[in-house]
Amino acid sequence: MSKHYASASWEDNLVRGKGTFTLKTSGYSGKVTFPSRFEDNKEASSPEELIGAAHATCFSMAFAHALDQAGYTPQNIETQAEVTLEKTSGGFSVTGILLQTRAKVNDIPEEDFHRIANDAKENCPVSRALKAVNIQLKASMM
Amino acid sequence: MSKHYASASWEDNLVRGKGTFTLKTSGYSGKVTFPSRFEDNKEASSPEELIGAAHATCFSMAFAHALDQAGYTPQNIETQAEVTLEKTSGGFSVTGILLQTRAKVNDIPEEDFHRIANDAKENCPVSRALKAVNIQLKASMM
Repeated sequence: MSKHYASASWEDNLVRGKGTFTLKTSGYSGKVTFPSRFEDNKEASSPEELIGAAHATCFSMAFAHALDQAGYTPQNIETQAEVTLEKTSGGFSVTGILLQTRAKVNDIPEEDFHRIANDAKENCPVSRALKAVNIQLKASMM
Repeated sequence: MSKHYASASWEDNLVRGKGTFTLKTSGYSGKVTFPSRFEDNKEASSPEELIGAAHATCFSMAFAHALDQAGYTPQNIETQAEVTLEKTSGGFSVTGILLQTRAKVNDIPEEDFHRIANDAKENCPVSRALKAVNIQLKASMM
């Protein structure tokens, strides 16, 4: 079992206020604001950007592991996450995550590549934690 | 609707390999390693640390908003997230998140404080996205 820590602070109400998050291991702190989360002003971070970073990282690690277990050596995996936040009848909700991955893997048939990528998308720990969210994957070989 | 982006890269297999995540808005990149995720060596970040940052931030924003809607002015909210990753029958899984929040709110009865905090824990967008995970809250007044 491993434990992982992060923190956040927020001052004032939601719309006027401002906040920060801090990652315990590095001590890195980033700013968060209302417009960076709910509007198109991307001057600061948001919980959804952090969810995207978690998911892109978790998927990439799981894909590397599954390739290795299947006898393939992954040289490099690059994954982008696009996280959509939108207003629904239940309030603002994370309605979808699109993972786009490109990977360089020696001597792998395309069918195996896509099967293993899809398996990692279904089964990585963050995908399972986020199973309330519609998760899509586009995978391509470098 | 708003879209949020982050990316990750990973080289080599899971155990020997190394990776980074990058937050699009700030360009900040952090390192991720196998031992920082699955062992007690916390020299680098992990997807679970990023999930914790997302959740602590989302909860704090939702709590600020709910207090404001109920007629209270939140001066300051400080939240820590502890994310547990452990091996289960289905593989490594995020089995629990403990949110610990301390908040300074003027003239609020303790009962209202706890009711509003619990409501934010149940209903913030990240809690709903993570509804597959056992989420606990400890809230105290500053």
